[in-house]
Amino acid sequence: MTVRVAVDVHGADRGPAEVAAGAASAATPQLEPVLYGPHGVDAHGLPLVETEDAIELDEPPVDAVRAKPGSSLVRAVRAVADGEAQAVVSAGSTGAMLAASLLHLRRLPGVLRPAIAVVIPARRGPTVLIDAGANADARPEHLLQFGHMGAVFAEEILDIAEPEVRLLSIGEEDEKGNQLTLDAHALLRASALRFTGNTESRWLLEGEGDVVVTDGFTGNVALKALEGTIRSVLGSFRDEVGSSLLGKVGGLLVRPGARRLRARLDPETYGGAYLLGLRGLVVIAHGSSSRVAIGNAVRLAALGVEHRVVDRLEERLSAGVLSTEAGRRAAETPSS
Amino acid sequence: MTVRVAVDVHGADRGPAEVAAGAASAATPQLEPVLYGPHGVDAHGLPLVETEDAIELDEPPVDAVRAKPGSSLVRAVRAVADGEAQAVVSAGSTGAMLAASLLHLRRLPGVLRPAIAVVIPARRGPTVLIDAGANADARPEHLLQFGHMGAVFAEEILDIAEPEVRLLSIGEEDEKGNQLTLDAHALLRASALRFTGNTESRWLLEGEGDVVVTDGFTGNVALKALEGTIRSVLGSFRDEVGSSLLGKVGGLLVRPGARRLRARLDPETYGGAYLLGLRGLVVIAHGSSSRVAIGNAVRLAALGVEHRVVDRLEERLSAGVLSTEAGRRAAETPSS
Repeated sequence: MTVRVAVDVHGADRGPAEVAAGAASAATPQLEPVLYGPHGVDAHGLPLVETEDAIELDEPPVDAVRAKPGSSLVRAVRAVADGEAQAVVSAGSTGAMLAASLLHLRRLPGVLRPAIAVVIPARRGPTVLIDAGANADARPEHLLQFGHMGAVFAEEILDIAEPEVRLLSIGEEDEKGNQLTLDAHALLRASALRFTGNTESRWLLEGEGDVVVTDGFTGNVALKALEGTIRSVLGSFRDEVGSSLLGKVGGLLVRPGARRLRARLDPETYGGAYLLGLRGLVVIAHGSSSRVAIGNAVRLAALGVEHRVVDRLEERLSAGVLSTEAGRRAAETPSS
Repeated sequence: MTVRVAVDVHGADRGPAEVAAGAASAATPQLEPVLYGPHGVDAHGLPLVETEDAIELDEPPVDAVRAKPGSSLVRAVRAVADGEAQAVVSAGSTGAMLAASLLHLRRLPGVLRPAIAVVIPARRGPTVLIDAGANADARPEHLLQFGHMGAVFAEEILDIAEPEVRLLSIGEEDEKGNQLTLDAHALLRASALRFTGNTESRWLLEGEGDVVVTDGFTGNVALKALEGTIRSVLGSFRDEVGSSLLGKVGGLLVRPGARRLRARLDPETYGGAYLLGLRGLVVIAHGSSSRVAIGNAVRLAALGVEHRVVDRLEERLSAGVLSTEAGRRAAETPSS
């Protein structure tokens, strides 16, 4: 079976040509990227669905999605809703992808809020951070669901049996945190998940737990602190070393090691993040994605289709979330 | 005039002897550290006030402070309240320091919540992060006050005229963030501060703005993500480079540059964080502090005394915070 992945060519900092080239690099007999973009884009032999419009990064997401039903982003998402593709990839506005997905794909039964799952290349192996930015304000029962979604992701995509789930807080002790994490801690503790307590952001890049649960505001702050610090430290290192001749010679000798490190820590290696909890597979790529990153994002989307991530989430959430009183109450409360 | 700094010898991972040695290293004719600790500690010629008890890191802070009035931590804080010292330094429990300070020093008039101000050694110069962990749950009006406290800190301690204040959020645009940051953004915008909008955690180590305002949960997560990532990246770099002979030779050559970078990024260089908003100067040192870090923390405390940080905060908060409607309302609401 060929997996078809709808690719929005707009939204990336480097423009549609870069996205098209990246999508083309991922094509195989089993994986057919379908481009959604303007007439005239070099499609590298891929099918191109011509679109008239594009959603800009600074547009209010919900308004833009409603006002531009013919935009490449909305058309690509609708391709999954209509069964024309099994997954969608966009490097455009995260907010617009979330809005379009909620409108056209809708949530899986029982899901309160979709969440962004990002793989962090930790020293001891990959860690899933969820939510990395979809929900700036979240409730404890949302965090419980994020734990379940992250666990399914770790099982299916990272091939980790019985993943260890942790809650991101400001101390390892159970009673450390803000009100949200204290309440979420209790729900996670009472759940069927293999929950092993809090973790701190200082361990994110070392790898403590397979899944780290948090709200979208905190997760986004932690993720960007990681990315920014990696870039700053490597950049400062280059500056310091380059300030003397011997340092420069040494810099040449350590370059292969530095390259390996950079490759592991580069967000482009993973290419994208899943937006989980929807009736369809959605991958959000970094706005700064190169063609390499787009290629990886398209492959990540296909991998999710092959592993039936959406079906597995549906099975898990219909069973898992309702297994606690709090989950039942939460599922009965309409979410905003 | 000699500045007397009360130093709690308990609470540091490396034990009282290390703290005493660090305090002694900071002593000058103008700066007299006074130790608070058990009989028998080598005081290196400094005055030692003998205490019977110590607060452990895992004790509930408020209970411990009430139950152990004779502990080194409480006695050291009380020394400031009683005028026996002008500042206090402890590497013990942050929660206990906060509780003891609230009980014995009390808040400055108009201050809703004390906050922790930490200096981040950003590439473009030092940045004040406030609150780095005192208030896990905060309200918008607290963040406005943190902005004022951070500005006074930047002016007095970092010698920055008209410091630029930013709000930590998950997007540079005004409308990006959670409800707390959206509301705080509006208060900061309406204030007399030189507020220039949101910043993201990815820029923390580069340096965007002189003061970065956030709640204690987010600030603590961001700070620990920074510290942990710096340690992980430098550690991974050593591993990668050490895996080949040429890499090892190169590693020797780049060592001076790496040392300079490590010295800049080491939390020990700054030694401690101010707990601001109290009727006395309080410095909290890292639990992992070496004698070098303790020495720096004691000097940081003395610097705050010389620059009259507490008086300046009092002047500023009585004028500044009440200059907006929201601030006036906030000051009338009793805080928990």
